[in-house]
Amino acid sequence: MNSSAIIAENAGFCFGVKRAINLVEKSLNEFGGVYSLGPVIHNPQVVEDLRKKGVQTVDSINDIPNGSTVVIRSHGVTKSIYITAKEKGINIIDATCPFVKKPQINVEKLGESGYSVIVVGKPNHPEVIGIVSYAENVIVIDPSLENQSISDILKAGFKSEISPKSGVLKINKVGVVAQTTLKLEDFQSVVVELIPFCEELKVYNTICNATRNIQWSTRQLASKVDLMVIVGGKNSSNTNKLFDIAKSITKTAVFIEEESELDDEIINKHDTIGVSAGASTPEWIINSVYDKILKIKNKQTEETL
Amino acid sequence: MNSSAIIAENAGFCFGVKRAINLVEKSLNEFGGVYSLGPVIHNPQVVEDLRKKGVQTVDSINDIPNGSTVVIRSHGVTKSIYITAKEKGINIIDATCPFVKKPQINVEKLGESGYSVIVVGKPNHPEVIGIVSYAENVIVIDPSLENQSISDILKAGFKSEISPKSGVLKINKVGVVAQTTLKLEDFQSVVVELIPFCEELKVYNTICNATRNIQWSTRQLASKVDLMVIVGGKNSSNTNKLFDIAKSITKTAVFIEEESELDDEIINKHDTIGVSAGASTPEWIINSVYDKILKIKNKQTEETL
Repeated sequence: MNSSAIIAENAGFCFGVKRAINLVEKSLNEFGGVYSLGPVIHNPQVVEDLRKKGVQTVDSINDIPNGSTVVIRSHGVTKSIYITAKEKGINIIDATCPFVKKPQINVEKLGESGYSVIVVGKPNHPEVIGIVSYAENVIVIDPSLENQSISDILKAGFKSEISPKSGVLKINKVGVVAQTTLKLEDFQSVVVELIPFCEELKVYNTICNATRNIQWSTRQLASKVDLMVIVGGKNSSNTNKLFDIAKSITKTAVFIEEESELDDEIINKHDTIGVSAGASTPEWIINSVYDKILKIKNKQTEETL
Repeated sequence: MNSSAIIAENAGFCFGVKRAINLVEKSLNEFGGVYSLGPVIHNPQVVEDLRKKGVQTVDSINDIPNGSTVVIRSHGVTKSIYITAKEKGINIIDATCPFVKKPQINVEKLGESGYSVIVVGKPNHPEVIGIVSYAENVIVIDPSLENQSISDILKAGFKSEISPKSGVLKINKVGVVAQTTLKLEDFQSVVVELIPFCEELKVYNTICNATRNIQWSTRQLASKVDLMVIVGGKNSSNTNKLFDIAKSITKTAVFIEEESELDDEIINKHDTIGVSAGASTPEWIINSVYDKILKIKNKQTEETL
């Protein structure tokens, strides 16, 4: 049997996540306990590990005592959090990923220059909630929703831009940014539909390189193997996208959080297995999944002999 | 037999062409003879009519005597023409269509603000040659060419934007405009492909309403009839596009310059016939085509009785 397992290039922690974890660990050394607004990264194993070290996860800035230290995770937060933190004398360790800062700054500048702003992404994702807060005249378009009419969304979001005479929508100045973990094709599909309605459309392709690279290598690997194993938090947006990509290319793909979820039967049914992981999946989890696959495969080989 | 002929809404002279013809006639009244740089509109019948009235068509500003009057046609001209005319004391009647002025001004501003500029259209079309002259760092992308690589075109056109380290193309600031008579889908298809290569992409949808409206009504009419007759100059870009649209929808479409080219046999073979015409086709030509179709149809009915 000619079986093998391959880990995708660029799998696992991206630059922004590594940076955030480093900042958290530095802060723990300096301040002892720190607060985090929401889990530092979308990975339950890592969050549990950090909790033991002294990171207390809270949902709201109001749950953090005055004068303490809060880590802003890589997804970033709304503009108002910075203001409240300042008012409460809370010390901020800003681990917002620099690639997330970009759309935040773009949206702020667009708003200040009188643009109608569109964020393409998941409206409920913490990153998008943060980005949206940087201007007033902003709407979110979720490209994953099917059968939506861009014209209707724009008319509902930018009512004042509809000509009272003709009822036609023609927006003077529009700016559009992307959630950093968006699939490029999803961003393109929305931009294309915006063109007929905008006099001037400023497009900021804020999809980050790390996301692009891991999506690309997952696509490459998926086209060469029989089974793809995607590893990461079930609540991780970018990992879910890798699973979508894998599913659309290989015959079979599975999505697991850790090695214990691996099903021997599925592994045994496929000869070549690819492993890929989202930006919030630590190396040790990827490696443990990889080792488990090899172990199942070895057992299978022994039984066959 | 339930046969009919219908003329498409918005067929014929657009706002810019009407304005240009009016300006030419006003100038003839005021100055007697005037020069035109290239034919005033892309319609041989109209050009011949104007020639008789005193409009002399020349190819170059150098063929126009100092101190005389030149009409700049609706397509517009290069920036340098204005300078040369001023130097030669040539009086300019500027009939550049206001919808063509838009991309000219956009390209000029983009160039002044350090943007790399892309014009989507036919590189040899007079309008595009004019628009391109308004900035230095400009390339033209012709969406009708098949199997072209946008990445290669950008790399060839904007060499300095290729990272010397990685060889990757990432252009900081890009602005894109459209030839006013472009098909919307062609503009969209180019913009989509630009997105991955641009940090900031400013999209000016400069396709004019008249073009959009006649394309829309041609599409509507073509879906309801058996034969489409497209009327206009063979060298008219927007009329050629109407022919493309008609061909892609009806079973049969023909492209003629005047009623004498109508083929009785084709007319007789189809029950319902739609007529549409480009922005440079005068009403009297459209009407003469329409009348001829009715005449052929009547003859057919008489012969059948």
